[in-house]
Amino acid sequence: MSKISGIAASAGIAVARAFILEQPGYVFAKQSGIDVEAEITKLGAALEKSKGELQRIKERALVDLGEKKAEIFESHLLILEDPELIGPVMDKIREEAVNADYALQEVATRFIGMFENMKNAYLQERAADMRDVTKRVLNHLLGITYVSLAEISEEVIVIAEDLTPSDTVQLNRKYVQGFATNIGGRTSHSAIMARSLEIPAVVGAKTVLSAVKDGDLVIVDGLGGEVLIHPSEAEVAEYKRKQEAYNRQIEEWKMLREEPTVSADGKHVELAANIGTPNDMSGVLENGGEGVGLYRTEFLYMGRDKLPSEEIQYNAYRTVLESMNGKPVVVRTLDIGGDKELPYLNLPKEMNPFLGFRAIRLCLDREDIFRTQLRALLRASMHGELRIMFPMIATLGEFRAARDLLFEEKAKLRDEGHAISDNIQLGIMVEIPSTAVLADQFAKEVDFFSIGTNDLIQYTMAADRMNEQVSYLYQPYNPAILRLVKNVIDAAHAQGKWVGMCGEMAGDATAIPLLLGLGLDEFSMSASSILPARSQISRLSAAKMEEMAAQALQFGTVEEVVALVQNNLI
Amino acid sequence: MSKISGIAASAGIAVARAFILEQPGYVFAKQSGIDVEAEITKLGAALEKSKGELQRIKERALVDLGEKKAEIFESHLLILEDPELIGPVMDKIREEAVNADYALQEVATRFIGMFENMKNAYLQERAADMRDVTKRVLNHLLGITYVSLAEISEEVIVIAEDLTPSDTVQLNRKYVQGFATNIGGRTSHSAIMARSLEIPAVVGAKTVLSAVKDGDLVIVDGLGGEVLIHPSEAEVAEYKRKQEAYNRQIEEWKMLREEPTVSADGKHVELAANIGTPNDMSGVLENGGEGVGLYRTEFLYMGRDKLPSEEIQYNAYRTVLESMNGKPVVVRTLDIGGDKELPYLNLPKEMNPFLGFRAIRLCLDREDIFRTQLRALLRASMHGELRIMFPMIATLGEFRAARDLLFEEKAKLRDEGHAISDNIQLGIMVEIPSTAVLADQFAKEVDFFSIGTNDLIQYTMAADRMNEQVSYLYQPYNPAILRLVKNVIDAAHAQGKWVGMCGEMAGDATAIPLLLGLGLDEFSMSASSILPARSQISRLSAAKMEEMAAQALQFGTVEEVVALVQNNLI
Repeated sequence: MSKISGIAASAGIAVARAFILEQPGYVFAKQSGIDVEAEITKLGAALEKSKGELQRIKERALVDLGEKKAEIFESHLLILEDPELIGPVMDKIREEAVNADYALQEVATRFIGMFENMKNAYLQERAADMRDVTKRVLNHLLGITYVSLAEISEEVIVIAEDLTPSDTVQLNRKYVQGFATNIGGRTSHSAIMARSLEIPAVVGAKTVLSAVKDGDLVIVDGLGGEVLIHPSEAEVAEYKRKQEAYNRQIEEWKMLREEPTVSADGKHVELAANIGTPNDMSGVLENGGEGVGLYRTEFLYMGRDKLPSEEIQYNAYRTVLESMNGKPVVVRTLDIGGDKELPYLNLPKEMNPFLGFRAIRLCLDREDIFRTQLRALLRASMHGELRIMFPMIATLGEFRAARDLLFEEKAKLRDEGHAISDNIQLGIMVEIPSTAVLADQFAKEVDFFSIGTNDLIQYTMAADRMNEQVSYLYQPYNPAILRLVKNVIDAAHAQGKWVGMCGEMAGDATAIPLLLGLGLDEFSMSASSILPARSQISRLSAAKMEEMAAQALQFGTVEEVVALVQNNLI
Repeated sequence: MSKISGIAASAGIAVARAFILEQPGYVFAKQSGIDVEAEITKLGAALEKSKGELQRIKERALVDLGEKKAEIFESHLLILEDPELIGPVMDKIREEAVNADYALQEVATRFIGMFENMKNAYLQERAADMRDVTKRVLNHLLGITYVSLAEISEEVIVIAEDLTPSDTVQLNRKYVQGFATNIGGRTSHSAIMARSLEIPAVVGAKTVLSAVKDGDLVIVDGLGGEVLIHPSEAEVAEYKRKQEAYNRQIEEWKMLREEPTVSADGKHVELAANIGTPNDMSGVLENGGEGVGLYRTEFLYMGRDKLPSEEIQYNAYRTVLESMNGKPVVVRTLDIGGDKELPYLNLPKEMNPFLGFRAIRLCLDREDIFRTQLRALLRASMHGELRIMFPMIATLGEFRAARDLLFEEKAKLRDEGHAISDNIQLGIMVEIPSTAVLADQFAKEVDFFSIGTNDLIQYTMAADRMNEQVSYLYQPYNPAILRLVKNVIDAAHAQGKWVGMCGEMAGDATAIPLLLGLGLDEFSMSASSILPARSQISRLSAAKMEEMAAQALQFGTVEEVVALVQNNLI
């Protein structure tokens, strides 16, 4: 057995055979004076095999993943039947008497380059499809066996360099027991996705891809952050026992499902869940969420070829509100841009997307998009306890402009005869340092704050959290971050407003004692973290944590803060 | 006459004919069955013309711009003589009987694509050279007349979409009287470069490129931020009068050259200069700088193919220290990365370079580079009043690590028998929000702070200052920024330390009253801003500005702050 350490990205333990997601390397040699007709026949056969394969994948995707995700394979089939692609390949083989793989590669590269250079982001995406399809046909031409994630049909652990958002879309939870990747951190896309799918995962395991061979037996320990390769029978048994202990722990946590969240000395706080779609609601209810602290509406806008209509949005918001049955639901308005793109909006490429045209900045510029969402939200407000939250607010002016649009739409809807709740709380994300610093000014005008630590930390430390070379600066417990959090909480409380937190930090066992001590009112996290957090808080004294947090605010380094928390928890 | 408004980027007025820097648009049609020998001859002629042209440009560049900048043209000549490029073009013309421009474009595109896909940043840069050279030959093949900036040999005003750093390298101050660009802001590269070259400039003039034709008479008003096209004789006379009035103003300012900087009520502050190379020292002395507040050492590392030796650095630092004749010189250690690249370091491409692996982050990782610079600085310390400053410090740990390396090198140098000053002040840039928030902790360990507002503003507002779509968020007077500045100043003064500012804000006429009121000790700016600033401060009451600044800190928006300053200055 050998062991590779990484970052525990999603709890639980998985034991299964490895499935290596690796891009095959291709070597192309131009061969001239070749038997033209043989090459044409080979190309035809490879095309037919690819079509049959895609047809089967599409059909299974329809059943397993739904119509939306199956569409991608339909568009791949269309590319294979496109005479504009296949014609020039045939011509090239005939005219230059070259081998089919070389001809296909040459022609496809030209098309891909063309698509990539288009200003239209939708057409740019076509380059990725073209690349996928070309790869599939080349694999058949060259006799390379390659299976994509969507085609997995037995229980495996996926091992990869990294998983992109488009890879994770294809992950089939039924078969994928866990995954391990070379790169990534606790807040990378793949880690967040793993937690939401409740798949054990280890990321940032540097060399795992080269250490594991396809079919190797591996254990992914998403609790300890380790990958074991070729475990012995004894080790498999040991880890199965660990998994069982973890399962028992989960059972204990489940006892807390209907309980309120109260500290050892009687202070009540609220534990809410972060969700992405109405489908996540079952997890929230199973895990005893006291509300939804962050409904990320951007998923409604993704995986489509145009903006979602008011009606589609209304139905989604209503479903979430109704399933919470009167408990609060904080809906964040569209936070697109940055690393989240919508091809159909044709947004320009940016040099620093994290410091760019995104979220409220885009919504205030594209009022049409924003007003539609506001109308859908307002109309849904009668079906539950709706709270609306604007993301990426950097100035009071932005908040006021967004609020005015909301009020305008409210008045219009009432004129049209719609019933709109009178009790919609209106808040903002505090994820930009300027807003944290000026929180006293904002607190006069908003109903609540929700601190978005993922972004707040990366802007405050000026370090891209996706960039491994500066990931040491992603320091949630840095005293500067704690001071900003404290400033926001104090400013809100002075105006009788409440403060939540919906970044990864809110569910983190080291941060929770500090946040309780700083006076945070609401903690919003992955649904799966709620019960462990409730259990942890029940053992903490809020008064003692307040003293501890006051001390942390006077420290100079993150190391001192972590040591303080560890000493206090012993 | 028509008038286009933009951003006043560099003071002064220029009147001259327009030189349009526009990339020609090429249309390529593949023509088959062409006279092969005629095409080969055409290609040969175009190559010869291009070589002659490059030879002449190189020779002039040697005289006007120096050896360093002439090298680029030598490498272009080498590309033109490379059989690896020209051979395949000839082959293509012969084998496919196609036109020379089509063949050249096809082959060059393949090479450019190859270079662009290389992981090595140095080879990637070769793609740009290849593109330039290809363009030059194509122009001759297609009969397009195109003149590059380096080839300008009469007095002109350059009109362009934007000027890249590599364009500005080629700007010949002797001939270029001013420039106007469609895009850019006051802190874009081209604007900073214009101020340092003292060339009047207007940037962000949106439509200027399409409105002006080559050879049009234009006026660039770098004071009012306007471009006048086809001015009448009367207008030319009027602007020449303005230019004269501005010149007289400059003469008055020059009277302040040897004076200290004192407010109307007797408060003394220091006005220092930002410099990039020892060549900038004459400007500092002419403009009465009381010190160098920021010596950006990265220019020593740029425009080379390898790292500068300890000796090269020592000589540069010594020159600057000696020319200041005992006045303080704050040297910032290497701030590379972000938008400033060094091809020979092979830094990885980053998704968000402004939040990436740069400055002290890189220096702590590449100790070899950092130690060489520290040694050169320490050795130069005997020749003047040296102060050393680390850029992009986000945590106390980074500062301590950098300081320890400095102390190690100091001990080693003394062991080697070198004399090192005992009075080297050691400070940090405050340009990351976390450091501004934790300034009290840093103030215990550093000798001084210098607030870098360009970055501090962009991180605090989470807005890339180079990105036009979010440029409205680059708000130097935002109360959140003022509060951070105040926090840094108070923290330093509590420990008896001094605070400077070396961002663009320090030289800005609206910011100066606020900064004086907040208690800033040292203002470091473009040399050309020093005398106007000294004149402005002499008319301000520091006590009154302190009251005003206290009021500004309690505002919610930048608009209120600007109105307050304007009312106070009337």
